[in-house]
This record gives sequence, structure tokens and C-alpha cells, in this order.
Amino acid sequence: MSQPDPKRVKTDDEAPYELIYWPVIPGRGEFVRLVFEEAGVPYSDVAQNIEKGMNAVKSLTSTDNIGDEHNPPALAPPALKHGDLLISQTPNILLYVAPRVGLAPKEGNGVYHLNEIVLTILDGLVNELHDTHHPIAISLYYEDQKEESKKKSEYFIKERLPKYFKYMQRVLDAKTSGEGPWLYGDSLTYADLVLFQAVDGTKFAFPKSTEALKKSGEYDGVFKLYDAVKERPNISKYLQSDRRRKYSEGIWRYYPELEEE
Amino acid sequence: MSQPDPKRVKTDDEAPYELIYWPVIPGRGEFVRLVFEEAGVPYSDVAQNIEKGMNAVKSLTSTDNIGDEHNPPALAPPALKHGDLLISQTPNILLYVAPRVGLAPKEGNGVYHLNEIVLTILDGLVNELHDTHHPIAISLYYEDQKEESKKKSEYFIKERLPKYFKYMQRVLDAKTSGEGPWLYGDSLTYADLVLFQAVDGTKFAFPKSTEALKKSGEYDGVFKLYDAVKERPNISKYLQSDRRRKYSEGIWRYYPELEEE
Repeated sequence: MSQPDPKRVKTDDEAPYELIYWPVIPGRGEFVRLVFEEAGVPYSDVAQNIEKGMNAVKSLTSTDNIGDEHNPPALAPPALKHGDLLISQTPNILLYVAPRVGLAPKEGNGVYHLNEIVLTILDGLVNELHDTHHPIAISLYYEDQKEESKKKSEYFIKERLPKYFKYMQRVLDAKTSGEGPWLYGDSLTYADLVLFQAVDGTKFAFPKSTEALKKSGEYDGVFKLYDAVKERPNISKYLQSDRRRKYSEGIWRYYPELEEE
Repeated sequence: MSQPDPKRVKTDDEAPYELIYWPVIPGRGEFVRLVFEEAGVPYSDVAQNIEKGMNAVKSLTSTDNIGDEHNPPALAPPALKHGDLLISQTPNILLYVAPRVGLAPKEGNGVYHLNEIVLTILDGLVNELHDTHHPIAISLYYEDQKEESKKKSEYFIKERLPKYFKYMQRVLDAKTSGEGPWLYGDSLTYADLVLFQAVDGTKFAFPKSTEALKKSGEYDGVFKLYDAVKERPNISKYLQSDRRRKYSEGIWRYYPELEEE
């Protein structure tokens, strides 16, 4: 057997970026798309063809998948192929892509701060929001865990949403956030795109609660940043294109009863 | 106001490593401790003094904390101080430390594969196990969400545990795992230490279910790797020392009723 040497897994920077994700929903793939769209860097997106997209994800997540000579198997999409390299896990893909497309510093330790902010938003706000409609098991339908969903949502709205919005506002209030509306330093980074998508999904799933947070005036920086990302020329064009999926199933779902008093 | 430049957040490699984590429990701090212990690299651990540890965590997580001139605020421990740099989020701390102490490659793309494996184990197996005893809200006692915990645990034992063990076994079956018992390449990396702690905590929380997985013979590589880490001279010394906390509260808790048929 060959002796794999991790140092030798190199990529050709000229190779195309290929996103593998579920078709139809925005989901976690959206965080990756926004990075390429903002940077204006071409990427292919297998999800644009429903059948091809389904097949690509099924082959990725098959328990027969034990990777290849360069790459270990992934558990779940999104995955990104770049030359011989295949990597998975949203924050990991972002960490790889962002410095290459100018949305994170290429040197120094700033990238560990960005990764920290991104992990806090993804692992916290995004995953907990998902669990409001699947608190018991992801293999069960929402309808079969509706009562528990209602209970979890009450705590999510009352305690967790304000906690994460307060955290994002604190990062914006920190000295490290610089002059502009951005989370870290003086220019837009991939962390700002992650915040945008997390807030946008939250607005869809819990519109009344998000509106109440906005009206409180305690998180003005967060909503200002949200607007600033939305108005970026490349992002604005993307959001109006049919490459941007509509919310439906997946992480961000709208069940009005979860917000009722 | 000064213009922070992320590229300028440098650290002195001779600076001491200082872990900030809750006292008494092993928790997520344990993943960081194991890296330093295996590498034989000195680190301070404020959790060794209960009062100092509690104060350090309280000051870290205070909503008044807006970081300092070098660092954004953290939401939750563990955090690591290294010279002027302060970073949080377990997989992020590991990503920073491991290449510096010889437990991950310093160059090439191997680190993205290791980060992917570590994120899958931490975000998946570890977080989902935590949620078996807190499916509704972390602000509620277990006793107040016992019924939902029982329901969630049934699915966790039946579906999620085998899914993650199968994933870890597939990574070991991959060509990228090399000759030895290790997940990636031919020598121990920090991903192996993460697997060890995740399996060790699972054994404590769900002993019967873990034993059943072992007896099935389908995950022999996982249990062989677990033993191989446990027998490492530095790890073995550490596990017998009083620096290793006993399981009690936190992520890994033993509620026998959650495993009952």
C-alpha cells in the first residue's frame, strides 16, 4: 500500500471550483455560493441540474464511499472539488476558499478570528435554528415532532436568538471590527457573508421574532451589516438571479405556529 | 480609531499557551488538553483552580466583553491565549495549535482533511450526544426535559451512533489513512485524539450501546485506534494524573434510563 503524505495533497490554483450540494433548497451550500458570487470567481454548481445534483450527493454520502487516493470520504454535503482535492464541512470549505478569492487574509492569525466567528454563527445560530423543527430526530417528519418543536422554539426565540444577535453585535462593537460595517477589519470578509445568510434565513423562518429584534434597536449594527451585504453589486445581482434558490425545506422553514404566543 | 489589520495579529511562538475553560468537568476543554499532553508541550490550565477558573470563564462569557485591541469577543469557552492572541471554538483552537506542536502538517492541504474529520466528529457525534440530555433547552434542567431526552436518545442510539461510527470506520478504511491505526496518514494527528475523546465520552454516557457497537465487529478500526491512543505514553500518564477530570456534568453524562429498552 502506498504511504499517503498529507503534505503532498496539493491543488492546482487554476483548477475549476466544483460545488456538490442538494438541488432545490438553499441550505448550507448557500454559504459557499455567496463567497464565489461576491468574489466574482467562477464555480460550477451540480445542484443546478436536479437529477445530476441528486446523484452527486447520493454518491458522496453513500456508506460505500471510502474516498479516493487523495481524499477521505465525506459524511454530508456541501463538498467542494478543486483539482484533486475534495473537502467537506461548510466552515472548512469556506476556510479553504476565502483566502484564495480575497475574502480572508492569506497570512497572519486573522483567519483564526474569522473562523471563530463563522463557527459560532454556523454551529450556534444556524444549527440550533434547524433543530427547532427537528428536536427529536432528523429521520422523523416535522409533523411527528411538532409538540417538541413548539417547546424548543419558545426557548429559541426567548433565549437563543437574542444571545446570538447580541454576540454578533458585540463582535461589531469590538475594536477589531474597524471603520466600516464589517465584522472584522476594514473590509468585507467571508464572515460578513455568513452573517448575512444566517440572518436572512432567520428572517424567513422566524419573521416576527426577527422583526422584534430589529425594532428593539439593540442590534442595529447587525441589521446594518445585513443591508450592506445585500447591496453589494455582485450579491444583489446574484439574489435576483435564478441561481439563488427559494427557501422551502432544509434548514430554514417557515412554520408560523412555531412563532405563535 | 485605529484601523485593525488582521495580517498584523501575530503571536510570539515562545509565548505560553493558556487554556481558559470551566473547572471540574472534562467538557470541550478536554480536546485541547489532549493535544498539549500528547505533544508534551507545557500549557497552563486555569480550570485547575476552581475559583480562578470560574472567574476566567465568567469574564470571557460576559455580555460586557467586547474583546480587546487584538481580539474579538468569544461567545463560549474553551478559549486559548497565546501571547496577544485569544481564540475560541474548539475546532479552531485545535487547528491553530496542532500544526505548531507537530500533530498536523504545517503545509499543504492535509490540514483541510483533518479539519473536516474533526468538524464531523465534534459537530456531529459530540454535539448530538450533548443534545440527548438537553433536546429542548440548555437553560432547563435535564429533569425538566426527561421525556424528550428519552425519545431523542432512542433515535440517537439506533440511527446516529452507528452513522458516526460507520463514518469513522470509513475514514480508517480510506487509502488516505495509511499503514498504522491512524485516521489520516502514517502517524498520529490531532484528529486521532479527537476520536479518542469522543469515543471515551460516548462509552461513559452510553456504555451498553457502545459495547454493542464494539461487539458487532463492524467498527474494529475505531476501537483499535481508541486503544492505540490510550496506550500512548504521554496520554496514558495524563489519564492517570489528577489533571484528567472525572466525567460528571457537561456534555458526557450517565443517565442509565436513556439506554433502557
